[in-house]
Amino acid sequence: MNSSSTVSPSLDVRNPSAPPDLSQILITFDSDLHQVRTLIAERIFREESFGELLIATGVSGGWREWDHPDWLIRMLEPESSTMPATTPSQMAEHLVARGGKLYRATLILAIINALSDNQQKGVTLAAALELIHLATLLHDDVIDNADMRRGKPSMPTLFDNAPAVLMGDHLYARAFEMLAECEIMRIVSATCRATSAMCRGEVEQLQWIGDYEIPEEAYFRLIEMKTAALIGCCTESASVLCGKEEQSEEWYRFGNTLGLVFQMADDLLDFTSDPATLGKQTGSDVADGKFTLPLILFREGQGSGEKLRTFINEAGSNERITKRLREEGVLERVSERIRDFQKVCHRHLDNLQKKNSSNESFEILHTLVDFTGNRTR
Amino acid sequence: MNSSSTVSPSLDVRNPSAPPDLSQILITFDSDLHQVRTLIAERIFREESFGELLIATGVSGGWREWDHPDWLIRMLEPESSTMPATTPSQMAEHLVARGGKLYRATLILAIINALSDNQQKGVTLAAALELIHLATLLHDDVIDNADMRRGKPSMPTLFDNAPAVLMGDHLYARAFEMLAECEIMRIVSATCRATSAMCRGEVEQLQWIGDYEIPEEAYFRLIEMKTAALIGCCTESASVLCGKEEQSEEWYRFGNTLGLVFQMADDLLDFTSDPATLGKQTGSDVADGKFTLPLILFREGQGSGEKLRTFINEAGSNERITKRLREEGVLERVSERIRDFQKVCHRHLDNLQKKNSSNESFEILHTLVDFTGNRTR
Repeated sequence: MNSSSTVSPSLDVRNPSAPPDLSQILITFDSDLHQVRTLIAERIFREESFGELLIATGVSGGWREWDHPDWLIRMLEPESSTMPATTPSQMAEHLVARGGKLYRATLILAIINALSDNQQKGVTLAAALELIHLATLLHDDVIDNADMRRGKPSMPTLFDNAPAVLMGDHLYARAFEMLAECEIMRIVSATCRATSAMCRGEVEQLQWIGDYEIPEEAYFRLIEMKTAALIGCCTESASVLCGKEEQSEEWYRFGNTLGLVFQMADDLLDFTSDPATLGKQTGSDVADGKFTLPLILFREGQGSGEKLRTFINEAGSNERITKRLREEGVLERVSERIRDFQKVCHRHLDNLQKKNSSNESFEILHTLVDFTGNRTR
Repeated sequence: MNSSSTVSPSLDVRNPSAPPDLSQILITFDSDLHQVRTLIAERIFREESFGELLIATGVSGGWREWDHPDWLIRMLEPESSTMPATTPSQMAEHLVARGGKLYRATLILAIINALSDNQQKGVTLAAALELIHLATLLHDDVIDNADMRRGKPSMPTLFDNAPAVLMGDHLYARAFEMLAECEIMRIVSATCRATSAMCRGEVEQLQWIGDYEIPEEAYFRLIEMKTAALIGCCTESASVLCGKEEQSEEWYRFGNTLGLVFQMADDLLDFTSDPATLGKQTGSDVADGKFTLPLILFREGQGSGEKLRTFINEAGSNERITKRLREEGVLERVSERIRDFQKVCHRHLDNLQKKNSSNESFEILHTLVDFTGNRTR
């Protein structure tokens, strides 16, 4: 968008030995991402009373109780450990000032940067699809609470569901309002399809919880619906916004594959990362009865779900599970699968680059692909 | 739409002594309402697996546990008291075949009938806005559960929240997809605003629960956001769909006022109706700590919230509360207020009728206004 010419050739694209760095990409889009944050803050808090109402009904105190905080929740929280009575405008400031990786927004801005110069609509689209993501996270909290109830002592009180559901609905409404402002019906429809897919993914995930026999294809179907559908919607919508209807199918397939990379890496990090780096508990998938690709590959090596069950019960800790998975070569095999999908992403980008006036903005997208699969948090 | 010429002059419009009958209006739009039901059924169950997933995750058994069933839930339930394993197509049949008053759809079809002949888009709009309404009902169940936890023994298990949240999100997504098919951005935006308003209304309602001092203006603000905003969106959107942009503001005000009538009548029925007629428990608002207009007017007569609290505690039953409210003339005063708002609705319709080629379709709308305020269920 406004600073593509500053992209350094030292980004070291497609060199797996150099860990890709999102921060350089974020700097490229710094001004646009700031606009995305501002737009989100304005839309969430635009109603004169919404923020105050959330505080009044105990939400501000409730956020911290949740076991699955997301970036909005963290952003809404002041730095201090106690929660002072905060005004909506202060909340909005936090939202603008503080972090959140804004992965989907960055991806959209990068594509629009590569394909056109329609900056303002790009910001609106990026903010809208981040809000959709955020709404699903809030509702996932409600859904996962049901689960935690069965396995964990620190179950949030039921009261927390109300603000999470309402805030999620509010974000959906704001997001679709912003999508309508893009004035392209196909983008609204694509986002609806992605939202439906995420719902079905969540429902099917509930079905597999605690099932040691979950097949590999079910895992891929789940992550396709839960994660890849929306990321595919981001890449498709960005291309449609740039008037590249005839390429939008390939942009969708690029984004969809990238989404698989994103979720596979996420699931791997739940084993290999540590809480300090990741910013949340590791081993939470196993604790929640969600058996992801590493354990599915392990089970395939062992021959039965019963052996997987015994192994998890006997290992007792995430560290011991991870150690064994590493010894069995399972973690490396997952990394290989991630790299295979990354190659597909790079090939899509190479094709797409040929169809467009080739420019260095595509290098940013290649770097994003590397980051997505090789990140440490 | 297809049968306006069959509307009988014996509908006895604006004659308060004759109870208005929705069934005649429903017959007028019978074929269109059937299309609305079919469209809703198709959209909800279009995904090959969604219905099966809901059954697999225990939703089919869970519906009946809820204390606030809505028309979809009732429609999804077979006639028999036990819940057999039902296929998605059987569920869809139920959805098409069985009831639900489809109030919002009927209103939209009546306006479109009065203003144009764009039948197919009218059906799509009607189905979409019914789905929005339904999504809010599903999420209200989750929100109200939080409440019931505090006061009632029959709290649904936490597990029921997951399908309610997901089904609601799914309906929102389907609804916005259908709105996008109407290809008018202003309708999408209007619906987003109404959805936001409903969220804020729910949040503010939580704030007032159990508060005997709830001011009259807070009550009206609540019902405006919770109910009137969406009904205003229905009437505004219907007029926009018919290309009557210049009248849409007055159509909105008509629908908004009609929505106030709708909710005031609903709140009155919670006192005056009986469970057999109403199809649900009466007295539930008081039991949930929601003090509506009849009790607010009673308190204004008594002078303090403390006296209202004492009265409710000492009365002990909904019948005794209602008897006293009737004796004090409070129920009649609420009916008067409803009639005042109905008069405003009729005046809007008279204005609007002058702006359009006056036809008998407006008489249907007048009858709907009468029904909305004077209904017994």
